[in-house]
Amino acid sequence: MRDTYHEDLDALTERLVEMTRLARHAIARATTALLDADLSAAQEVISGDAEINRLNEEIDNSAFDLMARQQPVAQDLRTIITSLHMSGDLERMGDHAVHIAKIARRRHPDSAIPKELRSIVLEMGHQAELLVIKAGDVVFNRDAETALELDADDDRMDRLRRKLLERILRQGWEHGVEATMDVTLAGRFYERFGDHAVHVADHLVYMVTGERPKDIDTDA
Amino acid sequence: MRDTYHEDLDALTERLVEMTRLARHAIARATTALLDADLSAAQEVISGDAEINRLNEEIDNSAFDLMARQQPVAQDLRTIITSLHMSGDLERMGDHAVHIAKIARRRHPDSAIPKELRSIVLEMGHQAELLVIKAGDVVFNRDAETALELDADDDRMDRLRRKLLERILRQGWEHGVEATMDVTLAGRFYERFGDHAVHVADHLVYMVTGERPKDIDTDA
Repeated sequence: MRDTYHEDLDALTERLVEMTRLARHAIARATTALLDADLSAAQEVISGDAEINRLNEEIDNSAFDLMARQQPVAQDLRTIITSLHMSGDLERMGDHAVHIAKIARRRHPDSAIPKELRSIVLEMGHQAELLVIKAGDVVFNRDAETALELDADDDRMDRLRRKLLERILRQGWEHGVEATMDVTLAGRFYERFGDHAVHVADHLVYMVTGERPKDIDTDA
Repeated sequence: MRDTYHEDLDALTERLVEMTRLARHAIARATTALLDADLSAAQEVISGDAEINRLNEEIDNSAFDLMARQQPVAQDLRTIITSLHMSGDLERMGDHAVHIAKIARRRHPDSAIPKELRSIVLEMGHQAELLVIKAGDVVFNRDAETALELDADDDRMDRLRRKLLERILRQGWEHGVEATMDVTLAGRFYERFGDHAVHVADHLVYMVTGERPKDIDTDA
């Protein structure tokens, strides 16, 4: 019985790592959709979200079963509850990728991103991928030390977003109201994607150490 | 021992209801801050968020203790886990009120909302209050039937947001880039506030009935 139990606990972690993999794919394809007005990439992100949601639900159900059947305490209980939180964050990361894909789809066949902002948005996409890859690694390795780095990694995303907004506010911006709205929201979605990756890492720290890395900013 | 246990379970609900009360106050004051460029209202929302976060943390800790000490099953376990989810949603509702307040603060002494959009934003604020009040009522009364109404109530919020965006996109909008960005984001924050109120109601349905009202759209 204990063996199945520990297999079930391990399966929680495997599902979380799989969610990071899917969220990474989603944000990468969403960035392609946005920059290249690639409709099939956008559709792929939108329809692919169901799989992320399914994993989230599986984790919810499995956590409930584990708690009901095994009545875990201490470290194991913390692992299970923390998995619920991480799964919720990853599910929302998938949603943010979908929001970005939907901007691309709405503006197709045009690109929602004016040429002079492409490099910043590309960089935000890369940063988002980096954050979710790193979140997946720290979950897989239960690596609380590396997890603490994500907050600083995310500062780079915040700087990119500020840069994006400064460009819009600069004299000579002449892309009209729709582009202003789209770029504003896309910037917000990348920023939120990054924030949730930091939350995943913060939850991992708590899972492993029992200490919160800081008062987690659950700004969503 | 069972008595303390049930008191602790009831205390979870009381804290959740208190969170709805605080979130309602926050969104009401944030709307005032936004429409009247009221800096002290904005500051009140921003500093008041700590209390919402504190309750969220209390619920987390109390849920953990209850699970570790009492090893609840079935309905009680569902109540505890669902409380964690609802608390997370309410915490984010507080954050969205803070985001709105920060827009107001940044634009002070100007108002971020152009005159012709005031009535729509006011209506969004009222709708947000209505949703969180109703969410609080259904949690307090464990009223799964009324909880199912919130989804339709929230449609009104979504319509208001679309109306807001249509106004911005209409010919003759001449309020510039900063106003476009602020109104776009404020609209998004009200919409998200409403979505989280629906999530709270959906979680309550699950808590009471063990059935999900639908695949909950955890779009955050």
